[in-house]
Amino acid sequence: MIKLYELAGAEENRRFSPYCWRIRMSLAHKGLAVDCLPWRFTEKEKIKFSGQERVPVLVDGDHTVSDSWQIAKYLEAEYPDAPSLKLENGEVLFVKFWAETVMNPLLVKFLLLDIHDSLTAKDKIYFRDSREKLFGKTLEEIVEGREERMPDFHKTLTPLRLTFKKQQFVAGGSPGFSDYIVFGAFQWARCISDFSLLQPDDPIYEWRQQMLRLHDGLAGNAVGYSV
Amino acid sequence: MIKLYELAGAEENRRFSPYCWRIRMSLAHKGLAVDCLPWRFTEKEKIKFSGQERVPVLVDGDHTVSDSWQIAKYLEAEYPDAPSLKLENGEVLFVKFWAETVMNPLLVKFLLLDIHDSLTAKDKIYFRDSREKLFGKTLEEIVEGREERMPDFHKTLTPLRLTFKKQQFVAGGSPGFSDYIVFGAFQWARCISDFSLLQPDDPIYEWRQQMLRLHDGLAGNAVGYSV
Repeated sequence: MIKLYELAGAEENRRFSPYCWRIRMSLAHKGLAVDCLPWRFTEKEKIKFSGQERVPVLVDGDHTVSDSWQIAKYLEAEYPDAPSLKLENGEVLFVKFWAETVMNPLLVKFLLLDIHDSLTAKDKIYFRDSREKLFGKTLEEIVEGREERMPDFHKTLTPLRLTFKKQQFVAGGSPGFSDYIVFGAFQWARCISDFSLLQPDDPIYEWRQQMLRLHDGLAGNAVGYSV
Repeated sequence: MIKLYELAGAEENRRFSPYCWRIRMSLAHKGLAVDCLPWRFTEKEKIKFSGQERVPVLVDGDHTVSDSWQIAKYLEAEYPDAPSLKLENGEVLFVKFWAETVMNPLLVKFLLLDIHDSLTAKDKIYFRDSREKLFGKTLEEIVEGREERMPDFHKTLTPLRLTFKKQQFVAGGSPGFSDYIVFGAFQWARCISDFSLLQPDDPIYEWRQQMLRLHDGLAGNAVGYSV
């Protein structure tokens, strides 16, 4: 069976990495069974065989693949008869970079402290130290006043919101990897924070509800908060 | 032959609408000949037959279609054997709304005065009046300090820039309507303003050069500024 190394919190079943969620959803999309192995930030040794230090790491027989984009491409190439992730749509790459450089940097400043609080004792030390160095502030300072930054976040989601006024998924009439990219970010938040990001009257909320129900409620049933 | 009503400046061959450029490029993409008719903001009567007051308006035999998105869909449906605009990629809609709600609002605040200066005397009055009402400022006030807003504009283009580091076009290995959407915005600027938007070391600059050369240099040979 395919194995996936996934970021986990102190609670082993709290799996919250946005990049891992892209792959969990993609595997389910393709109908592929997977054994998901918990991994913590400080367990670099455990995935050293992959030649790098981050999850997701996918092991499929003799193949080891890391980086969510490379894993998605691998799944498309290796399982061409399973439902397509629509990676051949060139615009998926634009959605990926929009999510990673526009949406996620705003989200991380909402979530850093909640991520920290969800981690094992050992990971907490590593996480606080590395993130505070990166941002040049304490986690508490970064997150402070997040409610006031909500209107800016909502405004940033405008292209996404308008898309859902016209069609059901980012990828069109059915979900594709572009949906899993954007959803991964929301699921990241949902798995470690009770901070509410979307209001029920937002078309993005309705889309997220659909995503939570996909593949027998894979994401909706995951350990997290009902926000 | 297909007819296209296109926004024109005081100079009849200065065609600068970003939405019309989407369609000019799309028609060339599909190898369809077109008779492009100049239209000015104040000539509402001239396109009244289309049931609305904006260009582009496309007339193809018995069919009249307005709105660039509807025209692109019409061309795909009516000419399925001609090269595809890849509108079936659901993510194109996200690119469209990103261009229209994120990129173009920044561009318009660079360009309003240059647009005004390119218009016929009659259009100038209409344009200044309607735009100053809309923005609650004079055109001169809106454009003022545009150089200082350039870093913010460049930052906003990050997802586009990163995409071109990985692939040749927004739509992947060959251009699609998503490219014509984004390019239309740059061509809008190029046709009416000598204000430089891109530096040669920017991957977006190189992509724009490719777009200017497409279809026998259709856009590159258009009346405009070499910036």
